[in-house]
Amino acid sequence: MRLAVIPGDGIGPEVVSEALKVLGEVAPTAEITNYDLGAARWHATGELLPESVLGELRQHDAILLGAVGDPTVPSGILERGLLLRLRFEMDHHVNLRPARLYPGVRGPLSESGDIDMVVVREGTEGPYAGNGGLLRKDTEHEIATEISVNTAFGVRRVVADAFNRAEERPRKHLTLVHKTNVLEHAGSLWSRIVEEVSLEHPDVTVAYSHVDAATIHFVTDPSRFDVIVTDNLFGDIITDLAAAVTGGIGLAASGNLDITRRNPSMFEPVHGSAPDIAGQGLADPTAAVLSVSLLMDHLGQKEASRRIEASVAFDLATRDQASPGATQAIGDRLAALVSSNTLRSAG
Amino acid sequence: MRLAVIPGDGIGPEVVSEALKVLGEVAPTAEITNYDLGAARWHATGELLPESVLGELRQHDAILLGAVGDPTVPSGILERGLLLRLRFEMDHHVNLRPARLYPGVRGPLSESGDIDMVVVREGTEGPYAGNGGLLRKDTEHEIATEISVNTAFGVRRVVADAFNRAEERPRKHLTLVHKTNVLEHAGSLWSRIVEEVSLEHPDVTVAYSHVDAATIHFVTDPSRFDVIVTDNLFGDIITDLAAAVTGGIGLAASGNLDITRRNPSMFEPVHGSAPDIAGQGLADPTAAVLSVSLLMDHLGQKEASRRIEASVAFDLATRDQASPGATQAIGDRLAALVSSNTLRSAG
Ligand SMILES: CC(C)[C@H](C(=O)O)[C@@H](O)C(=O)O
Ligand SMILES: CC(C)[C@H](C(=O)O)[C@@H](O)C(=O)O
Repeated sequence: MRLAVIPGDGIGPEVVSEALKVLGEVAPTAEITNYDLGAARWHATGELLPESVLGELRQHDAILLGAVGDPTVPSGILERGLLLRLRFEMDHHVNLRPARLYPGVRGPLSESGDIDMVVVREGTEGPYAGNGGLLRKDTEHEIATEISVNTAFGVRRVVADAFNRAEERPRKHLTLVHKTNVLEHAGSLWSRIVEEVSLEHPDVTVAYSHVDAATIHFVTDPSRFDVIVTDNLFGDIITDLAAAVTGGIGLAASGNLDITRRNPSMFEPVHGSAPDIAGQGLADPTAAVLSVSLLMDHLGQKEASRRIEASVAFDLATRDQASPGATQAIGDRLAALVSSNTLRSAG
Repeated sequence: MRLAVIPGDGIGPEVVSEALKVLGEVAPTAEITNYDLGAARWHATGELLPESVLGELRQHDAILLGAVGDPTVPSGILERGLLLRLRFEMDHHVNLRPARLYPGVRGPLSESGDIDMVVVREGTEGPYAGNGGLLRKDTEHEIATEISVNTAFGVRRVVADAFNRAEERPRKHLTLVHKTNVLEHAGSLWSRIVEEVSLEHPDVTVAYSHVDAATIHFVTDPSRFDVIVTDNLFGDIITDLAAAVTGGIGLAASGNLDITRRNPSMFEPVHGSAPDIAGQGLADPTAAVLSVSLLMDHLGQKEASRRIEASVAFDLATRDQASPGATQAIGDRLAALVSSNTLRSAG
């Protein structure tokens, strides 16, 4: 396995280094190449994602990314020039974001029931397409537009993936989250495609929720959700909320998948670079470790993937929630659990 | 006072009738005209909002709306043809949505602190502009676009209003909620205008939150917010979430304001028509009653507005949360409280 690693900014390098510790236990022969993309490189050279690096990244089986973003870089530069550029160049159309409330984890809701959902967020179009512009900038007549682009091709492949995932899950339930009553055109396309694809999946029950109502359900009745399929921007918003109600962004993992496997998929914690706590050993590497679990699953190493997730689940159930330990200590615990025979045989 | 009332669909008529009971206590001489807009009229005549009715509505000082939407009408027809059309025709640029966790109300969060925020949602542009379309419909090459339109004029008047409201509040704090790192053009316009207007309000502290991060803060630390200013779609999403964390959509009121007062402003509960519980006396009219409080405030009747809100606060603090009573019983209680001398003098 050839793995490209982009530790990135802030707490990125810290959490990635623990994630690699865990990876070492399940894939000791993985070939790892580090790429120093991020704020430091941009400051030093002005480069965000040079073509040559992009070419090299494509030679890998997968990419592990820590976090991107730094207060010394104007907002948006690294996000659009590096993170989103990677997602778009690598055609990461399925942005996979599971949200599970693990036993032992105290979420912010007084009553949450069992939360175990997977959000399939579209990753390469919608309002993220980068279309739009400014007219008459800095005048009283300025107009800013943002164009959400939704294609049958782009929507169908994501909806198909979401139905496939729903088929694999015990509840076989899929919810489209959108705002069809206002975003008439995009809403119509998404609804029609969900209806079409559902014909190929008679076992999967289908529901619809407006995005605004979905945020209510996330805090009042999150267990109603199983698989959610949604557009890029709605997916961005609701997966942060899903992370919040399942114990926080410190536990939320994601995969940016090119389902066709033409390009390496990229795995990253949902959290950002958290510059305020960087370098202090305070960051929880669990989200990065769970991202490695998604990575192994995507590469077909199902047993290794399950072993990592089981280790995290065990650690979350038994750790002192108030002081889970320093970044390295958590990483050490998780690596030890992954390598232990108990979980190996239970995996 | 000339008041136009649109009871609308589902639970709309039930909650409006309680709201009018309360209004009767503070404005016994109000002249009330009912308009039968909604699903029934559409079924009977195909009409959503005839020009003649629009003209009549403009002759009023304010509009009170119950709810719009019915399962027998295709999704979007009533929303876009009636509700949004009213907001756009009447230039309701400030969509005002306070969210307060009243004493005695049990929200879904285990720890919420004091929640007392006001969301100033832009109401006449953004992704709600209705721009966009379908190309190559029903083919593999179909493309759906939605264009978010943001004008300096439209953004500035809303941002100015939000700063004015922040000035009036003890904490004098304003948060812009947007997604500037991705929606570069609209984000740039909103950020620059917030910065400009803030120069006229040196007393108001200003913060920024990405919309995805804001949803996290809403469930982990909602008391950080005071006034929020945001675009039409983000405002739609976060105000449902704000309602959820402050005891539910049954308590959330809103005002669609034309700040210039060229057109009557419109007041409505944030909740929808809830057809599943319509006609059973199960709907909580509190949101509709609080909408009347916003209405009175907008018309300069500050004391009446405060009296209604104080009555609601008293009722919420003392009601049996598990069974608050039937729609009419709650309305009767609130009307009695509003007319009582105790609250009158405390108002
Ligand atoms: C950093 C930002 C561009 C990114 C996004 O909006 O997708 C982040 O919020 C995420 O969810 O991965
Ligand atoms: C019904 C719908 C068109 C409306 C909106 O999106 O504005 C509603 O959700 C609201 O928040 O008032």
